[in-house]
Amino acid sequence: MVIIMKANASQEDINEIVKAIEKYGLKPHISKGEEQSIIGVIGDRRSLGDISFDHLAGVEKVVPIIKPYKLVGREIKKYNTEIDINGVVIGGNKIAVIAGPCAIENKEMLMEAAHALSSIGIKILRGGAFKPRTSPYSFQGLGVKGLEYLREAGDKYGMRVVTEVLDPRDAGVVAEYADIIQIGTRNMQNFRLLEEAGRMNKPILLKRGMSATIKEFLMSAEYIMAQGNEKIILCERGIRTFETESRNSLDITSVPLLKLFTHLPVIVDPSHAAGRIDIINPISRAAVAAGADGLMIEVHPHPENALCDGPQSLRPEMMTGLLKEISLIANAINRTL
Amino acid sequence: MVIIMKANASQEDINEIVKAIEKYGLKPHISKGEEQSIIGVIGDRRSLGDISFDHLAGVEKVVPIIKPYKLVGREIKKYNTEIDINGVVIGGNKIAVIAGPCAIENKEMLMEAAHALSSIGIKILRGGAFKPRTSPYSFQGLGVKGLEYLREAGDKYGMRVVTEVLDPRDAGVVAEYADIIQIGTRNMQNFRLLEEAGRMNKPILLKRGMSATIKEFLMSAEYIMAQGNEKIILCERGIRTFETESRNSLDITSVPLLKLFTHLPVIVDPSHAAGRIDIINPISRAAVAAGADGLMIEVHPHPENALCDGPQSLRPEMMTGLLKEISLIANAINRTL
Amino acid sequence: MVIIMKANASQEDINEIVKAIEKYGLKPHISKGEEQSIIGVIGDRRSLGDISFDHLAGVEKVVPIIKPYKLVGREIKKYNTEIDINGVVIGGNKIAVIAGPCAIENKEMLMEAAHALSSIGIKILRGGAFKPRTSPYSFQGLGVKGLEYLREAGDKYGMRVVTEVLDPRDAGVVAEYADIIQIGTRNMQNFRLLEEAGRMNKPILLKRGMSATIKEFLMSAEYIMAQGNEKIILCERGIRTFETESRNSLDITSVPLLKLFTHLPVIVDPSHAAGRIDIINPISRAAVAAGADGLMIEVHPHPENALCDGPQSLRPEMMTGLLKEISLIANAINRTL
Amino acid sequence: MVIIMKANASQEDINEIVKAIEKYGLKPHISKGEEQSIIGVIGDRRSLGDISFDHLAGVEKVVPIIKPYKLVGREIKKYNTEIDINGVVIGGNKIAVIAGPCAIENKEMLMEAAHALSSIGIKILRGGAFKPRTSPYSFQGLGVKGLEYLREAGDKYGMRVVTEVLDPRDAGVVAEYADIIQIGTRNMQNFRLLEEAGRMNKPILLKRGMSATIKEFLMSAEYIMAQGNEKIILCERGIRTFETESRNSLDITSVPLLKLFTHLPVIVDPSHAAGRIDIINPISRAAVAAGADGLMIEVHPHPENALCDGPQSLRPEMMTGLLKEISLIANAINRTL
Repeated sequence: MVIIMKANASQEDINEIVKAIEKYGLKPHISKGEEQSIIGVIGDRRSLGDISFDHLAGVEKVVPIIKPYKLVGREIKKYNTEIDINGVVIGGNKIAVIAGPCAIENKEMLMEAAHALSSIGIKILRGGAFKPRTSPYSFQGLGVKGLEYLREAGDKYGMRVVTEVLDPRDAGVVAEYADIIQIGTRNMQNFRLLEEAGRMNKPILLKRGMSATIKEFLMSAEYIMAQGNEKIILCERGIRTFETESRNSLDITSVPLLKLFTHLPVIVDPSHAAGRIDIINPISRAAVAAGADGLMIEVHPHPENALCDGPQSLRPEMMTGLLKEISLIANAINRTL
Repeated sequence: MVIIMKANASQEDINEIVKAIEKYGLKPHISKGEEQSIIGVIGDRRSLGDISFDHLAGVEKVVPIIKPYKLVGREIKKYNTEIDINGVVIGGNKIAVIAGPCAIENKEMLMEAAHALSSIGIKILRGGAFKPRTSPYSFQGLGVKGLEYLREAGDKYGMRVVTEVLDPRDAGVVAEYADIIQIGTRNMQNFRLLEEAGRMNKPILLKRGMSATIKEFLMSAEYIMAQGNEKIILCERGIRTFETESRNSLDITSVPLLKLFTHLPVIVDPSHAAGRIDIINPISRAAVAAGADGLMIEVHPHPENALCDGPQSLRPEMMTGLLKEISLIANAINRTL
Repeated sequence: MVIIMKANASQEDINEIVKAIEKYGLKPHISKGEEQSIIGVIGDRRSLGDISFDHLAGVEKVVPIIKPYKLVGREIKKYNTEIDINGVVIGGNKIAVIAGPCAIENKEMLMEAAHALSSIGIKILRGGAFKPRTSPYSFQGLGVKGLEYLREAGDKYGMRVVTEVLDPRDAGVVAEYADIIQIGTRNMQNFRLLEEAGRMNKPILLKRGMSATIKEFLMSAEYIMAQGNEKIILCERGIRTFETESRNSLDITSVPLLKLFTHLPVIVDPSHAAGRIDIINPISRAAVAAGADGLMIEVHPHPENALCDGPQSLRPEMMTGLLKEISLIANAINRTL
Repeated sequence: MVIIMKANASQEDINEIVKAIEKYGLKPHISKGEEQSIIGVIGDRRSLGDISFDHLAGVEKVVPIIKPYKLVGREIKKYNTEIDINGVVIGGNKIAVIAGPCAIENKEMLMEAAHALSSIGIKILRGGAFKPRTSPYSFQGLGVKGLEYLREAGDKYGMRVVTEVLDPRDAGVVAEYADIIQIGTRNMQNFRLLEEAGRMNKPILLKRGMSATIKEFLMSAEYIMAQGNEKIILCERGIRTFETESRNSLDITSVPLLKLFTHLPVIVDPSHAAGRIDIINPISRAAVAAGADGLMIEVHPHPENALCDGPQSLRPEMMTGLLKEISLIANAINRTL
C-alpha cells in the first residue's frame, strides 16, 4: 500500500500515519518529495483487515499494490485449470462449445434442440429452467419441471447440461439435475449465492456482471473458491456501454487479460453480447482467436416462437457453419474444437 | 408496437407478419413508404406475451410503444405515494433524512451513532448487519447480532431503522427487526429477493443497480409491487461511468425523470455516489433541489476506524451543517426538513 | 511518482530503474515489501518530460502523484477567478444566466428571442452561427451573417453575446463579433483550436467533452491558459452513459469537484444534458444548489420550427418561472441571480 | 419516421400533426391503438430538413426509420471499397498492416523503425508529426520537420506513409508529404477538418471517437464523402468504458457491424485499445478473425525512451511473431497477409 500525502500535509500528519501503521505491526517507509511525500507500507496489508487510511489528516489518496484476489490468481497457480465434466474438458487445448435455448419452454422443443445439436457434435446443452427476466410479466421458466426435461435431454443424447440457479434455496435441486451450474450476470455479486456455489460439488459457470470490472469479476470467483469449490468457468458476455447497435459490447480485451490474471478457464457468450444473429459468427471467431477456451451460443429450433431471446438465437442448422469457422480459427492457434 | 421493415422487404414478408399479428388477435396497420414500410400493431401488446417479431423475414427493428411497467407508473396513479413508517413519512412534503454507519461493527459504535444522530433530529437510522462486500475477505457484518443492536438502538433513541437483506432466506429475520428493508445495488435484479420483498409487509428501500437504466429500475420495483407490496422507496445512488474522481456519478437527471414516470418516493444516497466526504454537502443540496424526497447519508462516529466505507462517511458533527443547508434548499422549493 | 514493482521483479530490475531515475537528476526511495517493492521518485516529475517507466523490466505500474495541470489549479490560486464581460461578471456571487437559441436561423427569430430574453433580465445571449452538426445534411448555421445578427441583437438589447468557433481559421472573425467565445463539446480536445483560444483577448466558454474525464477537461483549460488567456469559463453539459431517457447524464458531481480543483468559474448547460424540456427546471435548480456559477439554457421563440435542438428548447415565457426557481435556490446558498 | 403519440393525446393533437406533415408534402398514416396512436410519415423524410415533431402537443417520441447516412452505406454500394495506395491495397482480400512509432521523435529513431519494419514486410509506416496530446506540456511533435523525415523514410524503404492532421490549416502541407492522412479520435467530430479531408485527393484514415456510436462514426465518414473524397478507411481503436485494466475497451462488435452497414474498409488499432503490450497479439488476432481489413500497430525501436505511448509500443522484433499469428488467422478465413 502506498499513501500519497497532500502537498500541504504537515510533519504531524505524517507522524500520525506512521503511528497508525505501526499499530498494526507494519513498517512505513517515508519518501519526502519536493511537493508531496509518500509513505510505503511494508508487510501483508491483509493484516490491516478493512482499516482505511483515506480519512486521516493530510492523506490525498491510498494506492493498493497487492491484488485483492489470491486463490484465483496466476501467482498461486501457474498452469491452467482444466475442468472435467464427465469426460468433457473445459480449459484444455480443445475449445468447448455450449449451445441450446435461452429457456426450456416445453419438452418437445428442448428434445428437438438437443437432438439437432448432439447430431453435429455439441457435447454441452444449455437451457434455462429458472429465468431472470427484467419484467415480472415475462415467462419465468418451468422451474423443476424444466430441470427434469433438461436432464432427460442430456441423458438421451449423451450431453452434459448447464442451467442457471437464481436462488440459494434452489441450489440443492439444481445441483441434483445439472452437470454445470450457471450464475448469471445479474447475480455476479449475489454473494450468498456465490457462497452456496462454493459449497457445491459441481462446476460453476460464472458470468461477468454487465458493468463489472475484471477485478470485481475475479473477486466474485474468489468468493466461490474461498468456500472450497475450485471448478469455476468464467464467462465474458458483453458489457454495458453507450452503443445501441448491439445489445452489449463484447469486451474482447477481457479475454487475454483474464488469461493473464487467472488460471481459470474463460469462455465467451457471443449471443448476449450481440443480441442479434448477424454478427454471431465473426465475434465467435474473434473470441476463439483471442484465446477463449469455449463459447456459449443460444440456439433455438424455432427462434420466431421463442419465449426469450428469439432475436439472438441461431437455428440449429446455422451452427454447422459456425462450428466449421471456429474450428479453422482454433487450428490457426494450435487448438482444436 | 411498430414494426419497421427493411428497405428490401418483399410484399410476401409483409403478408407473413400481418398473418402472425392477426394470429394473436391484434390488428396491423400498414404504412408503405418510398424506401421502407412500417406496420403498426394495434391492441394490447401484452396479449402477445413474449413473442418477438424481430426474427421474421424483412424486419429491420421492432419499436415497443407501451411502457413495460404498469403498477409503479404515473398513468395508474397520479398522486404521490406516501409511506408512513410509524409516523415518519417518506414521499410527502417533508424531506426524509436517513443516516448511520455503513456496517454495524459493534454495539458501542452503533449506540454512539444513534445517540448523536437522534440528538440532531435524525429519525431514521441505517446500519448494515448483512454486508455485500466485493471481497470475501472483508468484514461481512455481524448478522443477526447486528440486527439486535440495530433494533435496540432504534428503540432506545426513538428511531426507525433500515437495514439490508441479501438472501431470501434471511427475509424473515430481517423483517422481524427492521422498519424498512433495503435491497442493495448489487441485488436490484435479484428477482427472487424482489419477489420475497413483495410478500413482506414492510416498506422496501430499493437501490438502483450501478448500471441499471431507469426503465430496468422501475421494472424491479414492478416485481415487488406485483407481489402486493406497494410500499417502495426508490434510491438513486450513482451510476458507473468512466469518471474516476468520484466513486460513481450521481445521476441527478434520474430524480426528476423518476418523479415523472412513477408515483413512488425517490431518495438519493450521495455517500455512495461521491465516495468522498468533501462533496457530500453540495450534491445533497442538489438532490433536494432536483426534487428528491429524501437522503440517505453514511455517518460514522469514527470514520478512521470504520470497517467499511470510511472515506465516504461523515462524522456526526458534520451532519448539523448539512441539515441546515438541506433545510434552506427544501424551503426554497416549498418543502421542509 | 511511485513505481510499483511486480512480485517477481529482481534486484537487477530495481537497480536498472534506480539508474534510470538518477540519470534524470531525481532521487529514488526504495521500499521493499514482503511481496512487492515500491520505488518513490522524489523531485519534480516534470523534469522527466515524457519519459515513461512502464516499459522497464519488473515494473507493474506507475502511479503519478502530482496533478498534471498547474495554471488552472487551486494550488496556484486560492480565490475564485471572476470574469468581467463589460460589466456582467461570471464567477462571482451572482449566478449568471446565458440563454438563447441553439442556432441563429434568421434575423427575425433572433431579434424576437433577444427581445423576450432581455425583457426578463437575461444579460447574455447565446446563438450559434457556425454549428457542429452530426450530419452533413443538417443546417450548418449562417456563418458570418449569423455573427452580424448576433452582434446586432446584442447591441440593440444591451446583451453580451456568446457564440461557438469551430475552426481556428474563423477565430479572428468570431472574436470580432462575440463577447464570449465558445469551444464546444466535440472540440474540447481540438488542441489547435484551444491554442488559438489561448491567444485571444476574449473570455472562452469551454464545454466538457461528452466522455472527457474531469482531469482531461482541466488539461484542455490548461492548454488555453498556457497561451496566456486566463479568462476561461468551464461548462458541464452532461456525459455520455448507457441511460437513454435523457440525451446525456448531467454529471452533477463534477460541479463541486471542479470547484475544489480549479479557481475557474463553472457553469452548467441543463438543455444538452436533458435533451427534453420537462426536466430543465429541476436540474437547473440542482446545478445552482451544487455550486454552479451559472447556467446556459436553450430558448427558442418557436421550438416547433427550430432547425436544431427543438425538443430541448424552452419557450421564452417558460424562462420566467425558471428564473424565479433558480433565484430562490441561489438565495438559499447566499447567492443571488 | 414514426410519431408515437402520448396515451392522453387528443384528436386535435393528431389533426395538428397531420397538418404539419402535409405542409411538407408528406403523407401521414394514422394507426389508432387502444392506448396510444402512432402516425407513420411516408415520403423522404429528408424533405423535412431539420424540422422536429418532438415539440408538438401530444407527441411522446419520434422514431426515425431511414438511416441518416447515404453515401457510405451498403444500400448504395454492395461491394467493398478497395483503396489503392500506390500498389498497396486496403479493403481487399489481403490484410493490411500499418506500423510505426506514435510520434516521430527524431530522424535516427524513425529510420531505425522503418528499416526494421520494412525488412519484415510492413508496407505502411505510421508516425506522428503533429501530436494531439492531453497535456500542453507533453511533446507536441516535430511538425513539418517530422513530415520530411517520414517522407524520407517512406521513400528510402519503399513504404507508404500515414500521419495525422490536427488543423485544417495544415491540410496542404500534410497532404504534400503523406500517402494516407489520419484524422484522430479527438477530431472525429471536428467537422471543418472532415470537410477539408473531403476535398483532398488522398485516402483518409478516420479513427472512431472514443465515445462515438457507430452511427456517429459513419456520419463523420459521410461528411468526408459528401465533399467528394471516397477513399476513407475506418479505424476502430477502443471505446471508453468503466474498465481500467486496459486503456480502452476494444469494441470488437463494431467490426462486423461496420462491415454490414458500410462498404468502406475497416481496420483496428489494438495498441490504443490495449494501452499495454501483453495483450496486443491476442486482440490483433481477434480483430482479423472478426473481419477487420487491417491493423495499425504502434512499434518503437526503444519503447523505454519513447516520448509518447511507450507502454503500448511493441519492439520491432516482436512484430515478427505477431505477423505470423495474424497470417495464420487470415488464412483460416481465406484471406492473406
